[in-house]
Amino acid sequence: MGVKLGILGLGTVGTGTVQLLQNVIGRHPLLQEIEIYRVGVRSLDKPRAVELSTEILTANLEAIVNDPAVDIVVEVMGGLEPARSLILQALKNGKHVVTANKAVIARFGAEIFTAANQAGVYVMLEAAVGGGIPVIQPLKQSLSVNQINAVTGIVNGTTNYILTRMQTEGSNFDDVLADAQRLGYAEADPTADVDGLDAADKIAILASLGFGGRIHLEDVYCEGIRQVSKTDIAYAEKLGFVIKLLAIAKRQSNKNSQLSVRVHPTLVSKTHPLASINGVYNAILVEGEPIGQVMFFGPGAGAGATASAVSSDILNLAATLQTSTANPNPLFTCGHDDYCEIAPIAELVTRFYTRFLTKDQPGVIGKLGTCFGNYGVSLESVVQTGFQEKLAEIVVVTHDVREGDFRQALAEIRDLPAIDSIPSLLRVL
Amino acid sequence: MGVKLGILGLGTVGTGTVQLLQNVIGRHPLLQEIEIYRVGVRSLDKPRAVELSTEILTANLEAIVNDPAVDIVVEVMGGLEPARSLILQALKNGKHVVTANKAVIARFGAEIFTAANQAGVYVMLEAAVGGGIPVIQPLKQSLSVNQINAVTGIVNGTTNYILTRMQTEGSNFDDVLADAQRLGYAEADPTADVDGLDAADKIAILASLGFGGRIHLEDVYCEGIRQVSKTDIAYAEKLGFVIKLLAIAKRQSNKNSQLSVRVHPTLVSKTHPLASINGVYNAILVEGEPIGQVMFFGPGAGAGATASAVSSDILNLAATLQTSTANPNPLFTCGHDDYCEIAPIAELVTRFYTRFLTKDQPGVIGKLGTCFGNYGVSLESVVQTGFQEKLAEIVVVTHDVREGDFRQALAEIRDLPAIDSIPSLLRVL
Ligand SMILES: NC(=O)c1ccc[n+]([C@@H]2O[C@H](COP(=O)([O-])OP(=O)(O)OC[C@H]3O[C@@H](n4cnc5c(N)ncnc54)[C@H](OP(=O)(O)O)[C@@H]3O)[C@@H](O)[C@H]2O)c1
Ligand SMILES: NC(=O)c1ccc[n+]([C@@H]2O[C@H](COP(=O)([O-])OP(=O)(O)OC[C@H]3O[C@@H](n4cnc5c(N)ncnc54)[C@H](OP(=O)(O)O)[C@@H]3O)[C@@H](O)[C@H]2O)c1
Repeated sequence: MGVKLGILGLGTVGTGTVQLLQNVIGRHPLLQEIEIYRVGVRSLDKPRAVELSTEILTANLEAIVNDPAVDIVVEVMGGLEPARSLILQALKNGKHVVTANKAVIARFGAEIFTAANQAGVYVMLEAAVGGGIPVIQPLKQSLSVNQINAVTGIVNGTTNYILTRMQTEGSNFDDVLADAQRLGYAEADPTADVDGLDAADKIAILASLGFGGRIHLEDVYCEGIRQVSKTDIAYAEKLGFVIKLLAIAKRQSNKNSQLSVRVHPTLVSKTHPLASINGVYNAILVEGEPIGQVMFFGPGAGAGATASAVSSDILNLAATLQTSTANPNPLFTCGHDDYCEIAPIAELVTRFYTRFLTKDQPGVIGKLGTCFGNYGVSLESVVQTGFQEKLAEIVVVTHDVREGDFRQALAEIRDLPAIDSIPSLLRVL
Repeated sequence: MGVKLGILGLGTVGTGTVQLLQNVIGRHPLLQEIEIYRVGVRSLDKPRAVELSTEILTANLEAIVNDPAVDIVVEVMGGLEPARSLILQALKNGKHVVTANKAVIARFGAEIFTAANQAGVYVMLEAAVGGGIPVIQPLKQSLSVNQINAVTGIVNGTTNYILTRMQTEGSNFDDVLADAQRLGYAEADPTADVDGLDAADKIAILASLGFGGRIHLEDVYCEGIRQVSKTDIAYAEKLGFVIKLLAIAKRQSNKNSQLSVRVHPTLVSKTHPLASINGVYNAILVEGEPIGQVMFFGPGAGAGATASAVSSDILNLAATLQTSTANPNPLFTCGHDDYCEIAPIAELVTRFYTRFLTKDQPGVIGKLGTCFGNYGVSLESVVQTGFQEKLAEIVVVTHDVREGDFRQALAEIRDLPAIDSIPSLLRVL
């Protein structure tokens, strides 16, 4: 056996990976050279879905990353600590690392890749974004000959599942969330998913790869889907849109050296390739010059899909270990030390969808129009959609506008006597 | 400058590639190490869209593949000969080869990869299938940890463009083809595209990568789209399908060791991910265990997209040349010498759509049912759709059936006195 793995964690992903590696028939023959040498867990007594001899299973994770026999450490335990420290220790010991941990990479990527470069080893993270979908490797190896203009993804399966069900059933967010939790599609504490934090980690990673610079996670603007209502889904539908939680990294149209990196619910035209990505599926659309648009679609989570991604990283490392590694392959290392310049959200130029509840006074649409006009906000459509109790409901869609200007107009509109409230504000792709 | 290219051909793809490599700002920094050293063409007098000094441009292609200074030969001239001989000569001289030539690879892949293995060099072919879409590299590197069950693609942009327009405009094949030729979406001689031959080359390549064995091109069953009528597109639409030219490589459901590899117009359910791939776009859907379904979508042709694929192969080779190449990377070489076992089309198990024109006799549907029943063909729906002149039109959709059995039933039905003709027969995905 050629290559010895030390796997940290035997939960959903770890178990899926062990199952794949224990059953290599019909897969790439090189997998036969890979040995599951140690697997670290918290509790040795827990029943496991895979058979592993007692010498393999251990609760001493430090011992795994310090064992000179281990060639590759596979971190599939999750969480920030001790995952971060164990990864750094493994790298310091000259071991390659495979990780599925977007949270650690999005926060400590700079530290981790610096350590890897110093040690002359690789950190692979295909499973960290898009589950089973090959997207990290294509971005690093195939698409990097392009000047990337935008990476736009549906990268969180839980929120896409919830929005898809709200769309098809006309249900409320709270009801669908409760049902998704019951069915195991959402966690008991759904914050990381529904507030967009998981998607923010992922778009930070994709942006870093696509645009060749590091990303401060706190520069990623983030809005979740809690405020998306079935009313807005229905109006969006009438206007030819579906609402998706998009993670977007894009060159600013007015200042090419700056990026906008953001996560928010977004109106997506029904004819757009991302509009038909439903349920727990993920998709990542990459736009570049000269390639145009390419999209990667597949299962964004789950034991099998994620095991495929983790195992493909292991396979690639095993293949590299077979060749001489006198010099590192520059497509496998992280070569950028600089941080990307991220524009504040006020500088974003985008279209908006807003819904107003107004007292039914004559001329209220005119007043809205005047306020928007004062700030250079040009409107694509203004529709009085009906009444809610005694209030008239007006839906406005703008042309492209600087977000800061739009917000100023909105602040002024909010103070108009005719305006009762502004229940929703969404961006349009 | 580190890596010297000898490019064979300066047409659509060659020009796009030179343009990309002459303008490397914002792309992977390693591209700066790549030198366009020689470019071979047929005619030195032709005006060119790119500037190349007179030492670089040459009509002596043999000299390029024999020049000891050349590290990588990029074959973007097309055709079978002299492309095949030049590739073999380059390999024999120890040069890596990048090619966009699906026709050569589908026919002479065995010979070419054997020569490459003997010389210890690589043959890269990302641009040969799916234009700019990264699909060859993901199949080789990321997805090969899976047991692949099926690769299904829309891999010919011309036919997808024609079918999309027939669908949206309700037009005839001949009219749309003529217009596509006028607009440059179809060639003056459209045979390779509309008869499915180009798609057959591509699915042979994808099958070989997905299933880890060589493919005899003559084993690929191939039907084009000339017989697809607007009538069938309209009926398919009513039944919830669109008609796509699919290229399919799939394990036989009744005999796992055999593959079916085929190209034919196919009814695809509107909810299937491939149903919404329209116009000149391509998409490749890969199904495997444990990953499930992943799909790759993007521009299937064009100078820019193809240049992206060709350049990504060049980049990968340049990166490999930077590391020591004492041993070849097993993910870059072709490791299989055996041929896949391909089942004859009669053994295929699939659903069928057939349209009959019948003399309006009582009991004709009963007679059809009896004939089908005699051969074990179970029907999902039988609909009398209307009349064409004095003939009644009946559309039948079957459940899964062995193609041989279905054909036998059909032969018997054709002889029934009540049957005027069977104008269409299509498979259902
Ligand atoms: N689940 C998915 O579909 C998916 C998809 C993409 C990426 N990921 C990422 O993959 C990683 C793992 O996810 P998962 O769903 O497999 O997690 P999980 O099911 O919760 O499993 C975690 C595993 O790590 C072990 N572990 C955790 N903390 C430990 C500690 N301090 N010491 C020793 N062992 C410890 C646990 O041991 P015990 O078994 O003894 O408790 C368990 O085996 C996460 O970073 C996640 O974000 C998951
Ligand atoms: N076009 C696409 O979108 C696309 C997409 C994917 C793959 N491909 C593949 O890429 C390859 C090239 O396609 P293309 O569209 O770029 O072809 P093209 O526009 O016809 O260009 C062919 C080039 O090769 C040169 N050439 C051909 N035969 C030659 C010979 N015997 N000696 C010297 N030079 C010769 C021609 O020289 P002159 O310029 O002097 O005539 C021309 O520069 C083909 O294998 C094709 O299947 C094309």
